[in-house]
Amino acid sequence: MHQSLILAAGLLLAGNAWAMRSGNEPIQPIEPATVSDAAKVELGKQLFFDPRLSKSGVISCNSCHNLSMGGSDNLPTSVGHNWQQGPINSPTVLNSSMNVAQFWDGRAKDLQEQAGGPIANPKEMGFSHEQAVAVVASIPQYREAFRKVYKNDTITVAAITDAIAAFEKTLVTPNSRFDRWLKGDQQALSPTELDGYRLFKDTGCTACHNGPAVGGNSFQKMGQVAPYKTDNPAEGVAGLTGKDVDRFKFKVPTLRNVELTYPYFHDGAYWKLEEAVDVMARLQLGRQLRPDEIGKITAFLKTLTGEQPSFPLPILPPSSNDTSRPQPFN
Amino acid sequence: MHQSLILAAGLLLAGNAWAMRSGNEPIQPIEPATVSDAAKVELGKQLFFDPRLSKSGVISCNSCHNLSMGGSDNLPTSVGHNWQQGPINSPTVLNSSMNVAQFWDGRAKDLQEQAGGPIANPKEMGFSHEQAVAVVASIPQYREAFRKVYKNDTITVAAITDAIAAFEKTLVTPNSRFDRWLKGDQQALSPTELDGYRLFKDTGCTACHNGPAVGGNSFQKMGQVAPYKTDNPAEGVAGLTGKDVDRFKFKVPTLRNVELTYPYFHDGAYWKLEEAVDVMARLQLGRQLRPDEIGKITAFLKTLTGEQPSFPLPILPPSSNDTSRPQPFN
Repeated sequence: MHQSLILAAGLLLAGNAWAMRSGNEPIQPIEPATVSDAAKVELGKQLFFDPRLSKSGVISCNSCHNLSMGGSDNLPTSVGHNWQQGPINSPTVLNSSMNVAQFWDGRAKDLQEQAGGPIANPKEMGFSHEQAVAVVASIPQYREAFRKVYKNDTITVAAITDAIAAFEKTLVTPNSRFDRWLKGDQQALSPTELDGYRLFKDTGCTACHNGPAVGGNSFQKMGQVAPYKTDNPAEGVAGLTGKDVDRFKFKVPTLRNVELTYPYFHDGAYWKLEEAVDVMARLQLGRQLRPDEIGKITAFLKTLTGEQPSFPLPILPPSSNDTSRPQPFN
Repeated sequence: MHQSLILAAGLLLAGNAWAMRSGNEPIQPIEPATVSDAAKVELGKQLFFDPRLSKSGVISCNSCHNLSMGGSDNLPTSVGHNWQQGPINSPTVLNSSMNVAQFWDGRAKDLQEQAGGPIANPKEMGFSHEQAVAVVASIPQYREAFRKVYKNDTITVAAITDAIAAFEKTLVTPNSRFDRWLKGDQQALSPTELDGYRLFKDTGCTACHNGPAVGGNSFQKMGQVAPYKTDNPAEGVAGLTGKDVDRFKFKVPTLRNVELTYPYFHDGAYWKLEEAVDVMARLQLGRQLRPDEIGKITAFLKTLTGEQPSFPLPILPPSSNDTSRPQPFN
C-alpha cells in the first residue's frame, strides 16, 4: 500500500512533467494510428504492395517507399519504368499523413491525390488510371474486397487511391526514444542527446522542424541565407505558381526516422546526417556549427527513430485469365 | 465417454485411411518447416529482402521471388539490373528446398549455391560477392547478427548465402486442400477436383509430377512426344554438359501453388493454367485432352495452393557512413 502510493505519486509527477513539457516543447509526440475500417486498410496494404499497378508488373508503391527501409528507397532519385531516373528524391511515406500537402512542391493536397500520381507518371509506374482500374477489376478477390469496403460493384481509381491512403495513414512511428522522453521518461535520452536537442532548438532548427512530425507543415526556400548548389533542376513551388518568390521553395521534410531516410534533401545529394545538419545550419540559418555540435544534434536526431510499422507481408490475390499482362519490355 | 470412444475410433480410421492413401498416392503432403536456428532464419529473411545486395540498391531476392506473389514475379522472364531482360522464367522459391537441384538446368546443387548466382550475375543484381560482403559488413546491426549466428567476426559470402538458404528452407506451403484430403479429410476436395486428380494420374502426369513437391525431383526433356516451339534459346542441361541427349532437358517444376506462379514453362510463354495443362498432355504424353478434362485437372491443380509463408515484413538495418552507395545509374 505504501509502495503503491509512492508509485502513484511518481506517475502523477511524470504526468505533470509531460503536460508541462508538451506545452513548452516545439515537438509533440506521435500517437499510434487508430484504424476505423480494418478491411479498407488491409485492401490498401495489398494495393500498396501490388506491382500490377504498374505497366511493367514490377514497380509498386513499396518500391520507392519501401517499408523495410524507413518508407524510402535510400537512393538520391528513384528508378522508374524502363529504369528511368526519377526527377527528385522520394520522400518517406512514414508519418506522411501529417504533411500539410504531398510531394516536395505540395502539388497534391492529400495522400489520396498523391497516390494517383506515380501510377500514371510515364517515368514512374508508367501506367494509366484506366489500365490500373482494369487490372484490379479483373481480379476476383479484389472485386470482392472492393464490394465489401465500398458497397459498390464498380471499381474506380478514386476507390483504389482512397484505400491506399487509408493504409498509408496507419504508417506512423510512435514511441521513439525522444517521444518517451517527451512523455516524461528522463532516462530515455543520454546527456549527449539532450544537449543535441537543446542545440537543435537554440540553433533555430525548430523554426521549421516542429510539430509531431518535426517538419512537414510548411514550405521554405532551400537556401535562405546562402544558395544551395545542385544539379537538380527542380524549382519547387515555383514550378506550379510560376512566381519568382516561390523558386526553390520546398516542403520542409519530416525529421522523424531521419536516421533511416538517407540520402537527404530534395536532390538526395547528402548521405551523411552530419553533413545534412551542417548544410542546413549554414544555408538556412547562417550558423557554422562545430563538429562536436553537429555530433550532438545528429545524436538527438537519431532518437527520432520510432517503432516501424509491423504487419505480415501481404499475400496478393492471383490474376485471372482476364487480367491484362504486364508489359515490362514493350 | 461413449462419445470419446467413437471419436477415437474415427480418428483411428482417419489415420488408417491416410496411412493407406499415403502409401498408394504418388503425391505426399508437405510438412511445416522446423526451425532449428531462429536467429539465422531471421538474418536470412532480412538479407532476402535487402536490395543492397544489388549494385543498384533496388533489386533484392524478393524482387524476382516475390513472397507476396507465390514466390515468383509473374513475368515471363525477370527485369534485372538496368532493366535487362532475364534469359529464363524465375521459378518459385516456395518449397524449393525439395528440388533435386536449383535453376532450371540444375547447375546449383542446393539453395546456398543458388543464392550466390543472381547477386553476381551482371544481368540480374549486377554486383559482385566481394561488394555484397563489403556492404553487409559495413552495417553494424548485420555485423552483430552475423557474429551471433556464425561466432565469427569475418562476414563471408558463404555465410550470407547460408543464411538466405536457411530462410528459404522455411518457405514451405503446408495444409493445401489437397494435403488435407491426403490426410483423410474427405470434404476437402469437391467431386470435380477429385475427378481432376484421377485424370491427372490416369493421363500420366504423375510420372514426373510426384512426391511432396509434385515435381522438382527429376530432369525431363521439354517436348518428349512433339517438339516445344519457343523463341527462348535455353538448351537446358545440355548447356552444362554439351551433350545432345541433354538438349531441352529441364528440371520438372513443382506444381505446388501453380495457381500463383504463372506464366508457365521455362520461357514463361503460357499464362493460362488450362493452356499449360493442354500443352503438357500433348507434348509430353501424346494425349489430346478434352476441354472438360482440362477443366477438371485445372480445378485439381488449384487445390495445391498451400498456406503462404506468413511473417512480419522485415525491417532492414540502416546503412552506416561507411556503406558504399548504390549505383543504379552508372
